[in-house]
Amino acid sequence: MAKHLDRILLEHGSGGLLSNELVAETFIPLLKNRWLAELGDGAVFEIGGTRLCFSTDTFVVHPRFFPGGDIGSLAVHGTVNDLAMCGGTPLYLSAGFVLEEGFPLEELERIVRSMAEAAQRAGVVVATGDTKVVPRGAADGLFINTSGIGIIRCAGTLSPRSIRAGDAVLVSGPIGDHGAAILCVREDVGLTSEIRSDSAPLNGLVERVLAEGPEIHCMRDVTRGGLGTILAELAGQSGLRVTIREKDIPVREAVRGLCEILGFDPLFLANEGCLALFCPGKDAGAVLAAMRSHELGREAAVIGSVSADTRGRLIMETLIGSLREVDLPTGELVPRIC
Amino acid sequence: MAKHLDRILLEHGSGGLLSNELVAETFIPLLKNRWLAELGDGAVFEIGGTRLCFSTDTFVVHPRFFPGGDIGSLAVHGTVNDLAMCGGTPLYLSAGFVLEEGFPLEELERIVRSMAEAAQRAGVVVATGDTKVVPRGAADGLFINTSGIGIIRCAGTLSPRSIRAGDAVLVSGPIGDHGAAILCVREDVGLTSEIRSDSAPLNGLVERVLAEGPEIHCMRDVTRGGLGTILAELAGQSGLRVTIREKDIPVREAVRGLCEILGFDPLFLANEGCLALFCPGKDAGAVLAAMRSHELGREAAVIGSVSADTRGRLIMETLIGSLREVDLPTGELVPRIC
Repeated sequence: MAKHLDRILLEHGSGGLLSNELVAETFIPLLKNRWLAELGDGAVFEIGGTRLCFSTDTFVVHPRFFPGGDIGSLAVHGTVNDLAMCGGTPLYLSAGFVLEEGFPLEELERIVRSMAEAAQRAGVVVATGDTKVVPRGAADGLFINTSGIGIIRCAGTLSPRSIRAGDAVLVSGPIGDHGAAILCVREDVGLTSEIRSDSAPLNGLVERVLAEGPEIHCMRDVTRGGLGTILAELAGQSGLRVTIREKDIPVREAVRGLCEILGFDPLFLANEGCLALFCPGKDAGAVLAAMRSHELGREAAVIGSVSADTRGRLIMETLIGSLREVDLPTGELVPRIC
Repeated sequence: MAKHLDRILLEHGSGGLLSNELVAETFIPLLKNRWLAELGDGAVFEIGGTRLCFSTDTFVVHPRFFPGGDIGSLAVHGTVNDLAMCGGTPLYLSAGFVLEEGFPLEELERIVRSMAEAAQRAGVVVATGDTKVVPRGAADGLFINTSGIGIIRCAGTLSPRSIRAGDAVLVSGPIGDHGAAILCVREDVGLTSEIRSDSAPLNGLVERVLAEGPEIHCMRDVTRGGLGTILAELAGQSGLRVTIREKDIPVREAVRGLCEILGFDPLFLANEGCLALFCPGKDAGAVLAAMRSHELGREAAVIGSVSADTRGRLIMETLIGSLREVDLPTGELVPRIC
């Protein structure tokens, strides 16, 4: 589809179809190696007999401050969560800043303070950093890259390739909160008191689930593109049919209302403190209980299951009982949400 | 000095005095931890009994293509070199892209191909990545963050605190080539055929030196701010007097000529494939020989020595034999050189 394109579109950053094409047609063929080809939230490798995970994310969220967080805490949570999705315990982060000439020092301090607090809460250390300044107009205020290293202590391999027919699909909480919070501020719809970003570090929740013992096949941070995109990707990568039940997917009333007003589907709105998880169906109850025992998983739910199929696809059983295939979204849904 | 400032200046990104103040007054106090406080090219820590190094750098160089390299190869070399300066063997890199809407896909491919070639030459794998797209005008084309992980096999601790009176100071090659190449393109002075960036991966050279056996006290990549800034910083951190002899510092004729035309001092022009090294004076000959045996160290030189002082400072013995103290530069010398 993108074959005729010769320029980057906003949609290349959406997490949807064009994002995937950019990775599949440019980055993977040129940088070819088995880690990138895994398409995971991070790379997993062994150094000195220890399994490590390594991940990177750049944050360009606009506005920089929003209900429930800011670009600083988001930059810490984003990479912490990517490492947690690899089954890793996040240990060290790096922070790379691009600052626009004229950026207020007071605002930079607020953002760095927020990073420090988020890092402390997540139990990680921002151990190395870099700052670049570009002339006025060459960047919109500030961008932050965080990369991170974690140690993997669990035995199994969390991967889309580990997903099996018979697996249950769970989410750790209501979907769309982060995207809705950003939309509220941008559109000035006056619902900001009710809708807050769910931006939070998921490593504690993941450790609770892994400590519980059941085998986990795959986890994925529900970020850009929202639950619909993440599950459609995983279905595609696993080659199996993932069926989800709309009635079981937790969505806050305020988020649902906002989506109705603005014409968005919560299925494609981002979270920044919510994960989707695949485990054997027989273990779904135990995993759900472990999630719910953690403050960030109180509203966790089993939302679907995996079955054999001739090709990987995501099917949603709608509220009225019909089945519809959920495709990777095209078009930029909400730009610069992270 | 910066106490009265309330906004980011270009100079905060120069690698000079204001850069150091930003780190010392904002990042270190807020993110407080012993790794950042080390002020090294990367953080060194142990995971699972293995010593690792971790570093990050964002690249905003303008123009993106210059004689001797481009933003892609530079982004790989920059982080490879930071890891090498920690005494590490670079293994894995991450790549985080910020793309401006409308950026030509063909140019992105050239840059990613250049990264791939540089990574292969340096023996590292770009194992994980991220892409963000911002609207037209919100970034100047493309910025690349690379972070990297290396393994440290040498026994000692390379650190400004390891520098001792009696140490010799060496550089691995002529200074200022990268900054001069960027200046040539920007100022269109018509010397581009003679001056090329020295952008290159220094890990092979470092391994050659470490394999040679002599004890190395400290190494530093000569980048932003040039040799003068790097040595003034190290003198300050060590609390010792570093004396360098202007006549022994290698500078290419073309670079010297360009500096005369444009009014720059090569001492403050960046390299991207040159290192400064401190080792016991008795080992200087062996280290020099090891450097010169490597293709990137053919023009290495012993340029000075370290002695006791009541405070850390950099002194230069000028061509006419006088001594002058070299301070951290103020003002933005050449913006966006990396």
